[in-house]
Amino acid sequence: MMRTRPLKVALLGCGVVGSEVARIMTTHADDLTARIGAPVELAGVAVRRPDRVREGIDPALVTTDATALVKRGDIDVVVEVIGGIEPARSLITTAFEHGASVVSANKALLAQDGAALHAAAGEHGKDLYYEAAVAGAIPLIRPLRESLAGDKINRVMGIVNGTTNFILDKMDSTGAGYQEALDEATALGYAEADPTADVEGFDAAAKAAILAGIAFHTRVRLDDVYREGMTEVTAADFASAKEMGCTIKLLAICERAADGASVTARVHPAMIPLSHPLASVRGAYNAVFVESDAAGQLMFYGPGAGGSPTASAVLGDLVAVCRNRIGGATGPGESAYAALPVSPMGDVVTRYHISLDVADKPGVLAQVATVFAEHGVSIDTVRQQGKDGEASLVVVTHRASDAALTGTVEALRKLDTVRGVASIMRVEGE
Amino acid sequence: MMRTRPLKVALLGCGVVGSEVARIMTTHADDLTARIGAPVELAGVAVRRPDRVREGIDPALVTTDATALVKRGDIDVVVEVIGGIEPARSLITTAFEHGASVVSANKALLAQDGAALHAAAGEHGKDLYYEAAVAGAIPLIRPLRESLAGDKINRVMGIVNGTTNFILDKMDSTGAGYQEALDEATALGYAEADPTADVEGFDAAAKAAILAGIAFHTRVRLDDVYREGMTEVTAADFASAKEMGCTIKLLAICERAADGASVTARVHPAMIPLSHPLASVRGAYNAVFVESDAAGQLMFYGPGAGGSPTASAVLGDLVAVCRNRIGGATGPGESAYAALPVSPMGDVVTRYHISLDVADKPGVLAQVATVFAEHGVSIDTVRQQGKDGEASLVVVTHRASDAALTGTVEALRKLDTVRGVASIMRVEGE
Repeated sequence: MMRTRPLKVALLGCGVVGSEVARIMTTHADDLTARIGAPVELAGVAVRRPDRVREGIDPALVTTDATALVKRGDIDVVVEVIGGIEPARSLITTAFEHGASVVSANKALLAQDGAALHAAAGEHGKDLYYEAAVAGAIPLIRPLRESLAGDKINRVMGIVNGTTNFILDKMDSTGAGYQEALDEATALGYAEADPTADVEGFDAAAKAAILAGIAFHTRVRLDDVYREGMTEVTAADFASAKEMGCTIKLLAICERAADGASVTARVHPAMIPLSHPLASVRGAYNAVFVESDAAGQLMFYGPGAGGSPTASAVLGDLVAVCRNRIGGATGPGESAYAALPVSPMGDVVTRYHISLDVADKPGVLAQVATVFAEHGVSIDTVRQQGKDGEASLVVVTHRASDAALTGTVEALRKLDTVRGVASIMRVEGE
Repeated sequence: MMRTRPLKVALLGCGVVGSEVARIMTTHADDLTARIGAPVELAGVAVRRPDRVREGIDPALVTTDATALVKRGDIDVVVEVIGGIEPARSLITTAFEHGASVVSANKALLAQDGAALHAAAGEHGKDLYYEAAVAGAIPLIRPLRESLAGDKINRVMGIVNGTTNFILDKMDSTGAGYQEALDEATALGYAEADPTADVEGFDAAAKAAILAGIAFHTRVRLDDVYREGMTEVTAADFASAKEMGCTIKLLAICERAADGASVTARVHPAMIPLSHPLASVRGAYNAVFVESDAAGQLMFYGPGAGGSPTASAVLGDLVAVCRNRIGGATGPGESAYAALPVSPMGDVVTRYHISLDVADKPGVLAQVATVFAEHGVSIDTVRQQGKDGEASLVVVTHRASDAALTGTVEALRKLDTVRGVASIMRVEGE
């Protein structure tokens, strides 16, 4: 049954991931041939700097004209590892128009324009696969959209950014402040020179949009995702977390509302109990915790970035797309039939840990408790510490809506006896 | 594109898993229709005891004649959740012959006759899916055979039996002995009245055979799997493990040899460091740790058994098989092209923790150390404890072959100064 015509692959981008994809296509050629049922051939590599030496890649395959490459007409699969919105989006669309299927690792593009790209793929009867776009090597897209296709997913909660997890883990284990931990992450190559996309949660928010879309069969746009970075997490927050038996992680959380009629997606730092499986995810590793009706609690863990892990995910997709092509079939496309509304952050219900600086005099706790009660936010525990006329109150609430909590905090700030709100952090995973 | 003719599903077995599959097919019918692209209809349910009341299942669908059901000719997918070898094997084969694809949760049958069943599916151009056969709800078969299809898997190491993990976790956390922990597992319904299949490692061995076959693209028969149960693990072993910063788990381990030219598969209790992700898998949960060339270290975690979790896996397969059927395609079949030899246990290389009861007199350690050296087994650490003319020696070795270790132990038993070998346990995950 082995066919002999090779499947032709065009590689767009030859950086850390692309060069690893090319390398593995060469070194594992026999395995790939056996698993696909036909050989795969690297037919062209589009790069920006053609004069850079690329070990193991035939210079005759290298071109700066990516558009011409995807328009060739004989390309079976385009592997897009350029990243960013343009020219990646136009190249992928052009690839579909010229008969190719696409494997992409581009989370930003998928989060922003996933629906349009899926539509283009469907229109031309081609595949669009993107396992590498979320959590690197961890098989996650395929399990969510295939293995759990007969189940109802209620929550996806994950550590989907390795840079921020490295920084937070460092702060947790050494007591370092944010800047010190960031500097170490930069020195070790875990953080980029401009770490904004990671530490401000943009990267995680793109992944949250993709995960929520797949989990809830609903289009979730990047703008629908509430986003809060982790640059303001302090050593004091970690000390507070430890007192509660918790640690702090930057989490991407996609949830179905209790009534099932809407969904939310958000990225922010949160305290989680040390007993939660996500708490023990160390260093730059990623992990995603999934809760569904029938399966219960699942977790997927592994390296979330890096050339080789990302290439592993790209190549898994490449094998699947090639098999589909030989079989004359396509894999599952976009599934957005549920079309649930995406609720704003104010509707999210969770618990909160709030540190207040207050005057150390009688009646303060009563005043504060009254404000919580007036806003319908029920208090679980309060801890009061005083010294030299100043005191701090640490309040942990029961579950309440983000809107109610925001109203509570605004009212607290207006109290004469409240000198300041030192920190507010959500408590998840309980 | 929605087609209206429903896909017809025949359910073989209506116990804990089967009744959950039927329930979800009814309650989630709209979701399944949307995800598949056509409705699915329960066309028949084969049971042994037709008079038992089955809530939510139309009695007109119930039959005791499973053979007639799979021979009907209008069945699209047969879901086999009977378990055991016969009549499951004949029914599955007959189903293929009469035009149906098959979803099975039957680990024993897949481990014993997977090759023949795959051949039958291939001959008739039908699908054979069995995600539920290994580690219940945890997506594992699909990630291994699809997501990692472009990678080279070197090791699969997992806790794939919830009953034994419950017992070992109980022994670890309470200091209980094996019998006491087993009694509790039985009382709570985690262990069956006859726990042999679980505690002697037969269940885990079947799963190891399936996992090794998929991971290494090589047929691995149940007989190829070395198997050692966990009934002889003692409270003293847990105390020894703690001293080493370890705990004890019953592990299924599938490994590619260092030279890549052969593979091994085995099930036995082993010490693993507390820092290893598998060490924190508690209660009846399962988890599988996968190491590959490009992806690195991945872990998949979740409930390994139970009606709902297993039904989740079955329904995910059902959706995939139905989609394939509508698209006129089939999913990946057996991949055994690598055909690597399966090496015997003697070739397995790992570390060992050995407790010896010895005479408390000068020269004993030198004698013992000489025996290890003569067999080429290098010692990492020795701890000596003596009282009242008796002493114990705890030896932890560097990596050595099982054959070399066996030879060492045989020679040690012949020494006059060695009163007995109290325990031998492998040390993994370092």
